[in-house]
Amino acid sequence: MYGNMMDQPLLISEQIEFAARFHGDVEIVTRSVEGPIVRSTWGKVAQRVRQLANALRKAGVREGDRVATIAWNNQRHLELYFAVSSMGAVLHTINPRLLPDQLDYVVNHAKDRVLFFDTTFAKLAEVIGKRVPLHIALDDAYEAFIANESSEFSWPALDEKTASSLCYTSGTSGEPKGVLYSHRSTVLHSYAICMADALALSGADVIIPVVPMFHVNAWGVPYAAAMVGAKLVLPGPGLDGKNLLELITTEGVTSLLGVPTVWMNLLTHLKSAGQTLTTVKKVVIGGSACPPSMVEAFEREHNARVIHAWGMTETSPLGTANLMLPKHEALPYDETLKIKLKQGRPIFGIDLRIVDEEGAVLPHDGVSAGDLQVRGPWVASRYYGDDGIGLWRDGWFTTGDIATIDSDGYMQITDRSKDVIKSGGEWISSIDLENAAMQHPGVAQAAAIAAKHDKWGERPLLVVVGRAQGAPSAEALQTFLADKLVKWWRPDAIEFVDALPIGPTGKVLKRELRERFAHIVLSA
Amino acid sequence: MYGNMMDQPLLISEQIEFAARFHGDVEIVTRSVEGPIVRSTWGKVAQRVRQLANALRKAGVREGDRVATIAWNNQRHLELYFAVSSMGAVLHTINPRLLPDQLDYVVNHAKDRVLFFDTTFAKLAEVIGKRVPLHIALDDAYEAFIANESSEFSWPALDEKTASSLCYTSGTSGEPKGVLYSHRSTVLHSYAICMADALALSGADVIIPVVPMFHVNAWGVPYAAAMVGAKLVLPGPGLDGKNLLELITTEGVTSLLGVPTVWMNLLTHLKSAGQTLTTVKKVVIGGSACPPSMVEAFEREHNARVIHAWGMTETSPLGTANLMLPKHEALPYDETLKIKLKQGRPIFGIDLRIVDEEGAVLPHDGVSAGDLQVRGPWVASRYYGDDGIGLWRDGWFTTGDIATIDSDGYMQITDRSKDVIKSGGEWISSIDLENAAMQHPGVAQAAAIAAKHDKWGERPLLVVVGRAQGAPSAEALQTFLADKLVKWWRPDAIEFVDALPIGPTGKVLKRELRERFAHIVLSA
Repeated sequence: MYGNMMDQPLLISEQIEFAARFHGDVEIVTRSVEGPIVRSTWGKVAQRVRQLANALRKAGVREGDRVATIAWNNQRHLELYFAVSSMGAVLHTINPRLLPDQLDYVVNHAKDRVLFFDTTFAKLAEVIGKRVPLHIALDDAYEAFIANESSEFSWPALDEKTASSLCYTSGTSGEPKGVLYSHRSTVLHSYAICMADALALSGADVIIPVVPMFHVNAWGVPYAAAMVGAKLVLPGPGLDGKNLLELITTEGVTSLLGVPTVWMNLLTHLKSAGQTLTTVKKVVIGGSACPPSMVEAFEREHNARVIHAWGMTETSPLGTANLMLPKHEALPYDETLKIKLKQGRPIFGIDLRIVDEEGAVLPHDGVSAGDLQVRGPWVASRYYGDDGIGLWRDGWFTTGDIATIDSDGYMQITDRSKDVIKSGGEWISSIDLENAAMQHPGVAQAAAIAAKHDKWGERPLLVVVGRAQGAPSAEALQTFLADKLVKWWRPDAIEFVDALPIGPTGKVLKRELRERFAHIVLSA
Repeated sequence: MYGNMMDQPLLISEQIEFAARFHGDVEIVTRSVEGPIVRSTWGKVAQRVRQLANALRKAGVREGDRVATIAWNNQRHLELYFAVSSMGAVLHTINPRLLPDQLDYVVNHAKDRVLFFDTTFAKLAEVIGKRVPLHIALDDAYEAFIANESSEFSWPALDEKTASSLCYTSGTSGEPKGVLYSHRSTVLHSYAICMADALALSGADVIIPVVPMFHVNAWGVPYAAAMVGAKLVLPGPGLDGKNLLELITTEGVTSLLGVPTVWMNLLTHLKSAGQTLTTVKKVVIGGSACPPSMVEAFEREHNARVIHAWGMTETSPLGTANLMLPKHEALPYDETLKIKLKQGRPIFGIDLRIVDEEGAVLPHDGVSAGDLQVRGPWVASRYYGDDGIGLWRDGWFTTGDIATIDSDGYMQITDRSKDVIKSGGEWISSIDLENAAMQHPGVAQAAAIAAKHDKWGERPLLVVVGRAQGAPSAEALQTFLADKLVKWWRPDAIEFVDALPIGPTGKVLKRELRERFAHIVLSA
């Protein structure tokens, strides 16, 4: 027996129309590629979204066609987000930080029909877009494209499982893999990130998504912001500390979202400028593990609550968010900090489990570490145009992370499975080791990798970037680590480098480090 | 083209299992019918839910069967919520405050197969449940029913549109009408009430749902609490101020949800006891319009934020919630109070519009008042076993409320359409009139109704319940109202009564008042 409830599909078109009807006057502010600030509103953006949809339809774009973008976080990119998906086409956001070969691969694999690009990427668009029939620059060309179109559009009543957008994720090996989101997954994910227990995005927020719109749909913020009528501040290409601080201050930003690298730049700028954040209430940090000093700096120096979150391109991305429970209220700050460094508790819809090498499910004891698997309505079921066998089994997706889950449901990633250091059959968490090293004031960055060992199979090798002032010697760092790590977790060797190799999504390329230091063989 | 996302249905069984897996240690505290406090956890409740499902299956309950409850807010009722729906049967929560004829009607209309009842309602269950094959008292009989069952149950992979629960709403005329919710509508509604912009229910909350579990699923709180792992405090039958305050204090309650009448009792008790609330952070008030003095008392005397919300049995119930926007931050408190008395902004998923008598859509100008219509995935499409034609047209449900919507999306109910006072072709808001009267310290309750008028058709008649001390004369009250209402909105007559007639869901029965005062014919 079915319920007697309205059969209304979950669609992205409903989000932008809802914003227009109920939050029409709320501002969208962009730092444009050209430099000046551009001000608009959800109401005006919705009008331009409908104009754009009409223009795309005239250009021959049909349901299911892929429309690509290579663009920063700005208003025109936002308009593409809503117009392309709402009309039933698929928005393919290209990450310009992919390698040239990978860029060429994704454009051909997606068979994009139109390519919109910020002028910053004009040359890149020309090189990779040879087989794309229509190119439109996000400048006056875009304005001309939509100028004479009607601002009315009757959105199709799509099946909510219709594809809406496509993001490629660059593995460390092999070709990039496409994740094809649906309207249903996008709307459900939007609800999830608006939950008080997740990122708590709301109409009371002024949000600056520093995470790029070419990276997992800017963590879904554009969709969620439309749903709740939040003011959006889109920072364009200038992601340095000075530019961000200026926007935050001028626009009264309350919520920041981005990866640790960006916040490191902002915090450094704040320190050198002798300023503190006054309007910011929360900082969402994800994309890679968040160092404890960063949480402390935001919370203690800038009075902004940090929400540590975890997700992947394959999970839309939000999987877990770290919020405190009533039982934690009485804890001293340092104790809460330990909890805050965990990746957080799963958001309902996302189910997590950890399994051992035989696939047996491990307990939620906060100690047992295993392969993290995930399932849920905003988790990919396969890669686009690829069967993806191997990562999916029995309805679960294997994330490639090694994690623990504690009895309160907090998940903590201890490693990437390919980066794990296996010493005498036991795993050593490279992340714990790196965090311990980064507590040293003279250490700017640290990466722990497995080096070959004649007795233990593998032992940790710590690769360190020292600061200009106060960088420790290897010996001094070993002494510093002595009371922070159990003895058998401490590195057998420490190597100093000028910089760590960073991949297109801002993560340290440990594979390169392992190759570089493959000559090191440790012995007992 | 479909997206490549996991095809996972939205099911109530996922909510209880999620609570068990990730929030297993979080407490469920009940003031039992017998008197003592009973303590459990989401983990233990989930085990008993599975035992109950096994017992129900053995008792012959199959998918689609209706299982009825007449019960207070307590743990066993909570177990029934999850067990019955998760196994694919339909939970029919009976409101014991319905009239005897109505109770008889709903049990027969629903064709309930099992009837669970709190011992308070033993006699009632006997009378109305004559045709229900199986009766089980929520005492030792219930414990015996589930005692020897396995705490494992493999929940069926239901279609998410499967019926999950059934609530009858008592109109002021005609038979009660059943609203048949689905798993999909319930889970989507759960996400909605956990949004920061709605009721913001979270794992950091200790929630006391004072709204009964026999009334629109306690506003969906049981489901949402499982999703986020909130501690639940279930007050049982004792809803007086003293009992509530004791529970709030002992259990550290942070969030209250209920109708104005209950809060009036609590505030009166707090005042007479000379106490203030210390743990409460938010008070959700819905069910009927909230008087300004109540908002002020909670916010100024008890430092608890009021969230005024609106909904109906037909909308699951959450439709709108009233939260402030950044633009309101600089306003003086009295100005924000005016905004807080509105019913709030629609939660995404709920679409609102107001239409005039010809069905033309009216503007969102905060002034134009019209019939409020609503649509969305948690809005009823018809009544159970009834075509419902008349209230549904073109995909919209007509709520029976008269409302305005302002340019920020705030909806304000000015009247029930059947209670509207039409003076010389213009509408007078009875709610505004009542709120003005209730600002007088000697007025306990007030109801404005239409009386016949020889010139204007209808004119307002104000029916007042005075306080024991300081009740004004009719003349003094007219003077008091003089600077609060435009001249033509002021009542033509004021009648004093000992009490207002109250219906089964706590609302004033204006129809009865109109009948009682039908003899009054006003003249120019």
